[in-house]
Amino acid sequence: MIKPRTPPGVMELLPREQIAFQRMLDTIRSTYESFGFLPVETPVFELSDVLLTKTGGETERQVYFAQSTGALEKSRENGEGLPEMALRFDLTVPLARYVAEHEHDLAFPFRRYQMQRVYRGERAQRGRFREFYQCDIDVIGKDALSPRYDAEIPAVINAVFERLAIGDFTIQFNHRKLLRGFFEGQGIEGEQQMLVLRELDKLDKRGEAAVRETLMDEAFGLSDVVADKLLAFSRVRSTSHANALTQLAALGDGTPLFNEGRDALVATLEQLKAMGIPESRYAINLSIARGLDYYTGIVYETTLDAHPQIGSICSGGRYDDLASHYTKSKLPGVGISIGLTRLFWQLREAGLVDVATSSVDVLVALLDEAGFADALALSQTLRARGLRVETQMEARKIAKQFQYADRAGIRFVALRGEGERATDTVTLKDLRNGEQETLAMDVAADWLVGRLGESVQ
Amino acid sequence: MIKPRTPPGVMELLPREQIAFQRMLDTIRSTYESFGFLPVETPVFELSDVLLTKTGGETERQVYFAQSTGALEKSRENGEGLPEMALRFDLTVPLARYVAEHEHDLAFPFRRYQMQRVYRGERAQRGRFREFYQCDIDVIGKDALSPRYDAEIPAVINAVFERLAIGDFTIQFNHRKLLRGFFEGQGIEGEQQMLVLRELDKLDKRGEAAVRETLMDEAFGLSDVVADKLLAFSRVRSTSHANALTQLAALGDGTPLFNEGRDALVATLEQLKAMGIPESRYAINLSIARGLDYYTGIVYETTLDAHPQIGSICSGGRYDDLASHYTKSKLPGVGISIGLTRLFWQLREAGLVDVATSSVDVLVALLDEAGFADALALSQTLRARGLRVETQMEARKIAKQFQYADRAGIRFVALRGEGERATDTVTLKDLRNGEQETLAMDVAADWLVGRLGESVQ
Repeated sequence: MIKPRTPPGVMELLPREQIAFQRMLDTIRSTYESFGFLPVETPVFELSDVLLTKTGGETERQVYFAQSTGALEKSRENGEGLPEMALRFDLTVPLARYVAEHEHDLAFPFRRYQMQRVYRGERAQRGRFREFYQCDIDVIGKDALSPRYDAEIPAVINAVFERLAIGDFTIQFNHRKLLRGFFEGQGIEGEQQMLVLRELDKLDKRGEAAVRETLMDEAFGLSDVVADKLLAFSRVRSTSHANALTQLAALGDGTPLFNEGRDALVATLEQLKAMGIPESRYAINLSIARGLDYYTGIVYETTLDAHPQIGSICSGGRYDDLASHYTKSKLPGVGISIGLTRLFWQLREAGLVDVATSSVDVLVALLDEAGFADALALSQTLRARGLRVETQMEARKIAKQFQYADRAGIRFVALRGEGERATDTVTLKDLRNGEQETLAMDVAADWLVGRLGESVQ
Repeated sequence: MIKPRTPPGVMELLPREQIAFQRMLDTIRSTYESFGFLPVETPVFELSDVLLTKTGGETERQVYFAQSTGALEKSRENGEGLPEMALRFDLTVPLARYVAEHEHDLAFPFRRYQMQRVYRGERAQRGRFREFYQCDIDVIGKDALSPRYDAEIPAVINAVFERLAIGDFTIQFNHRKLLRGFFEGQGIEGEQQMLVLRELDKLDKRGEAAVRETLMDEAFGLSDVVADKLLAFSRVRSTSHANALTQLAALGDGTPLFNEGRDALVATLEQLKAMGIPESRYAINLSIARGLDYYTGIVYETTLDAHPQIGSICSGGRYDDLASHYTKSKLPGVGISIGLTRLFWQLREAGLVDVATSSVDVLVALLDEAGFADALALSQTLRARGLRVETQMEARKIAKQFQYADRAGIRFVALRGEGERATDTVTLKDLRNGEQETLAMDVAADWLVGRLGESVQ
């Protein structure tokens, strides 16, 4: 006998939790589709040389390699060399490979969503996952991509979190050009810009005092005046749409790069307003840096107003060149990612996951053996109307059948005993409030559909 | 520069094919849910000792192992031993592990569906995949499971393929007890039964003559009389519901096991009729053996009437004990699997995949820069009504925008030029028939929803 268990670092759910998780996935997907994004799925494994274009980095240390028994044996004989295949660690590298590989078959700007699991050999600890869902959208241009897409992305984020209904949220932006222009103005140039950026990215975790100290240490060598200016700049946060515009104007003029970043943020704010995004849902936050070298324009983070400790639940930004490792074509883009496994885990920890309702709408009970064929026919009738129906296959005690439905979170029980069969009626009980009605067969399905309202898919 | 490419043996789709594939997945899922099956997802990798309960078999030779860089280095130093984790090669073993692991948190009969990718190190060749979707349902009982579930499964198969609309199909069954009882009657006992079963399973591929020869060779040692009886038995196929009952009756009585299998098939046929399944969609076919030791009762195969060469597109059956490797509890069950990647590939080869329609319903065109904010607002209005809308972000030539929508398979284009904006109207063009209407803004969304009819999700 082998003890049944999952590997550490994965999130496996019981059915009722899985239903709640699936609802979130469905909401995200239908929202992505409502903005015209097209589905893409890529294989879980990529060729190692394709996935790991840069070798020896932190990424590679976290990668899982995959090999068949035959390949495993061979590699043990031959010693060195990477296994042929590796599991994707994000959806961005597979997107780059996909766009470069299928470049001539795609229409640009290429708008894709992708919702699949990714793999990272993280140190096992609570809330860290080795397998987790990412739900990404990106818009990829060929040679160029209108800055207007920078504002469409937060409109999608807004729609997603409005529909997920997990509480008030704020989409925050900054702009890499504004940041780098500001650094230039302080005499911070070249590679040091990335180092300062990464340090500012730690403000949330380390706090201002520690970051200030680092900025002034030997490696950075910034003066206290410059360090204080950087920190003051990082403190800029808007409280409303109008306030965001005022604060951006108050920054005044800087280097051309600085002005370009500032004007881009203003245009994004105006476009969000034109799209009718509630003004309370977006803000500028000049402390947002996003550590990756990758980003070149706007950067986004999204936080739940009541749960700041969760950190960003949806992040991303604009980049100049998606797939330079795979193609000479210049492919600028903008996109975001929702780490749904982690988000779900955190919502569950905070008691915010609703596992009350089953995906089954109606349990068709079986009162007596003579009613079996009838119960089957009733079930099929309800299914034909789009209802999700489970049929009791054995005539257990009726109390047991109600108890089963209640525990499973199934809202309605449908019954046809001898009486109902004689009068061609059906008794429907709503377990939410205990109400019970006996209706003619031909109106029962409509009655149920009406009661279930929007919860019927 | 690295050449962007996928590993061999995977199916990666362009967006329009992916949309068609996604529609099939959605149809299967909603049908599974309409029968009250609950969603389960398991991690892509399992611990090797859990996944490979029997070592050294054919299965293990096809397994992909997964290990992180650190584990890879260690295993190279230490030489032997299996890597810690392996990718699932089907959804049945993970189901067994899941049910055994979560036994005390599940309600039985446990009805689950699972639609995920599985991995097998198949020899690379056309139509063989190393990564492919399986779409499974199973009903698992504790200690016992009513034979009535044997008939519910084909009702689900019927609903799935009716809704997938890929042509007429026939769900065929046989029963292991009928087969084994018949073998007993011919003096074929014990282990030889499995060998004969596996041989009969090859009838489609090898033909009657070759199988007859094998059955009579030294290893089998059956007489020509017995071999001919086996082949005659295998030829039994029904042409209608009534004919199936007649043929089963005509088999007469045999061993108790034989009679039990025959009566079970009769009960299944009657239950299918009670569920209103069209009689043309199911049949008995006593040549169906399903090679796996695993099955103990009814077995199913499903074929497309116009494409017999595709073989079974949905197979499964009844088994006595799901998880004997992981738990002492007896867990009998019945289930089926659809190998969707292979099916999609075959339908595509046969020209039966419809990639005509985009997942985007409407393209909101942009006629002039002055209309940009207006186009954004229109897009949001349409989205609020559940439509899937892509907005043109740049005022390109209108012919280009129509061409783009047409090539992308987007059915409707919505336009608001100066004229429409002045009169608060919108022009809607249906690219399917070229018809164009200019409507008041407040009725436009309803008009589109009506036209799109059932294609709106």
